[in-house]
Amino acid sequence: MKKLKRSARLVEMTQYLLARPHTLISLTAFADRYQSAKSSISEDLAIIKEVFEGEGLGELNTLAGAAGGVKYIPKTDKTAALRTMHGICRQLEQPERVLAGGYLYMTDMIGQPALMGEVGRIFASAFAGKDIDVIMTVETKGIPLAYATATYLNLPVVIVRRDNKVTEGSAVSINYVSGSTKRIQTMSLARRALKDRSRVLIIDDFMKAGGTVQGMVDLLSEFNATVAGVGVFVESGEVGTEERLLEDYISLAKLTNVDLKTKQTTVVPGNYFQP
Amino acid sequence: MKKLKRSARLVEMTQYLLARPHTLISLTAFADRYQSAKSSISEDLAIIKEVFEGEGLGELNTLAGAAGGVKYIPKTDKTAALRTMHGICRQLEQPERVLAGGYLYMTDMIGQPALMGEVGRIFASAFAGKDIDVIMTVETKGIPLAYATATYLNLPVVIVRRDNKVTEGSAVSINYVSGSTKRIQTMSLARRALKDRSRVLIIDDFMKAGGTVQGMVDLLSEFNATVAGVGVFVESGEVGTEERLLEDYISLAKLTNVDLKTKQTTVVPGNYFQP
Repeated sequence: MKKLKRSARLVEMTQYLLARPHTLISLTAFADRYQSAKSSISEDLAIIKEVFEGEGLGELNTLAGAAGGVKYIPKTDKTAALRTMHGICRQLEQPERVLAGGYLYMTDMIGQPALMGEVGRIFASAFAGKDIDVIMTVETKGIPLAYATATYLNLPVVIVRRDNKVTEGSAVSINYVSGSTKRIQTMSLARRALKDRSRVLIIDDFMKAGGTVQGMVDLLSEFNATVAGVGVFVESGEVGTEERLLEDYISLAKLTNVDLKTKQTTVVPGNYFQP
Repeated sequence: MKKLKRSARLVEMTQYLLARPHTLISLTAFADRYQSAKSSISEDLAIIKEVFEGEGLGELNTLAGAAGGVKYIPKTDKTAALRTMHGICRQLEQPERVLAGGYLYMTDMIGQPALMGEVGRIFASAFAGKDIDVIMTVETKGIPLAYATATYLNLPVVIVRRDNKVTEGSAVSINYVSGSTKRIQTMSLARRALKDRSRVLIIDDFMKAGGTVQGMVDLLSEFNATVAGVGVFVESGEVGTEERLLEDYISLAKLTNVDLKTKQTTVVPGNYFQP
C-alpha cells in the first residue's frame, strides 16, 4: 500500500478495523501496511478508539507487549440497544402481525439486513466476553440473526436442518417435541459440520416453550459440544414457567398478552434488559 | 453529537458511510451532524473518496445541487474479485468435497460470514447499476449469500420456502422440476412477502440445470414481479447447453469435470469473469 497522509490513513485504518472485528492486529502489521512509525500508528489508534467508544460503536482494546496489538470489539451499549428494541417492539405490536397459535409474523423484519445487523450487534455485545467457537441456528428464520451475530463476533455458523434429508455425508438426527405444539419433529446436522468439543452459541428468532432450542442443546451433546450461550430475538411470555424447558437464555424482546380476537399484543424488551 | 476535530470526524464519517451503503446522505445532514461547514465536509469527503476508490472499496458518488449529497457504493473491482474467486476455487477443488450426484460440499465455506461478505460484495458490484427492489433466495444455503449481497446493496430479502407449510397467511406454492434430478418439488412464498410489480434479484448458491432458479422465476410471475438479475455462486458445467433452463445469469465459479471415482474436480472462475 502506498504511503498515506495521516488523514487518509485514519480513513483506511477505520475501515480496516471495522471489517475485522474480534481480530488481533499487531502494531507491526499496521506499521508495515502504512509504512509508518509505530508511534504514529498508536496516535491514530487513540483517535479511532476515542471516536468508537464515544459514539458507542464498541471497544478498541489495545494489548501491550511483543504479542500486542489492537482488537476491535463491536458493541451496542445497553441504552442504545434498549432504544433500538423499543422501536422493534412497537413494530412487533402492529395488529396485522398476529398469527394463529399466538405467533407473530415478523418475516418482513427479518428480511431487513440493516435491522438484523443492529440485532446481531446487540447479541454480539451480550456474548462478547464468552469463549465461543461457533454459532448454531436452525433453519430458516434464525439464519439471518445468526449470521449478523457471527459477523460481529468473527465466528463461523452451522445451520441445523429441520429434516433428515441432509445430503452431506453422515448426519446426526434427533427427534424433539416442540414444547408448545407437542408435535414430534426432526432436526439434523451433518457429522462434519461441528468439531468435537466445540463451544456453541445458539441463536434463534422465536422461543415459546423452548422445545426447538432444547432440541439443539440435545443435538450438541451428540457432538460432545457444549452450550456457551443461548440468545433468542423474541420470547413468548405466554408460557408458564413450569412449561419453559430452558432457563438460561437471553431474550431481546418478550411477547406478553396476545389477544387473538382483538389482535392486540404487547411486546416489551426481553430479559437482557432486566436490571 | 459533540463537535469533533477533523481527524475524529474523518473516523466517524468513514464508519457512518460504511454502515449506510447505497444511501444518499445530504451534505446538510453531515454538516448538522458534525456542526461543521459544508465546505469542511466536502473536503473530508474528498479524502474518504480517494481512500475508498484507491483501495478498491467502492465508489463515493457525489450528487451536486439542492437535493445533492453523497452515496457510498461498495464494490470489489474485477481484479480483486478474481483473486478472491481463485482462492475459493482452490478450496472447492479439495477432493473431500465431492458428493454423490456431482454436488460439492461447501456448507463449511457458506458458514464463514467474512467469506460470504466477500462474495456478497462481488454480487453487489455485479448488480450495483440495476434497478432492484428486493433480493430473493430459496432456503437454505442461498440465504447467507442473499443477505451478504443485500447488506451491500441496502435491499430487503425474501426467502422462498421449500415446502408448503408456510404458516404466514396465504401463500403461493408452485411445483417445479429440478432439472438435474427430474424430481417434482414444491416451493412457496407468503402472499404478503412481495409487493406487486417488484423488481427481483435472485441469488442462489448452486445451479445445475437451473430448475430451482427457474422455479423462482415462475413464482415471481405469480406476484407480477420481474427478474432484475440472477446470480449464482457456483454453477455446474457438467450440464449440456440444451439441458440448461436458463441463459441470463451471472456465476462466480464454475464446476467442470467431476470424477466421482478419483474425486478430482476442476473449479474455475464463472461467467462473470469472462471477457
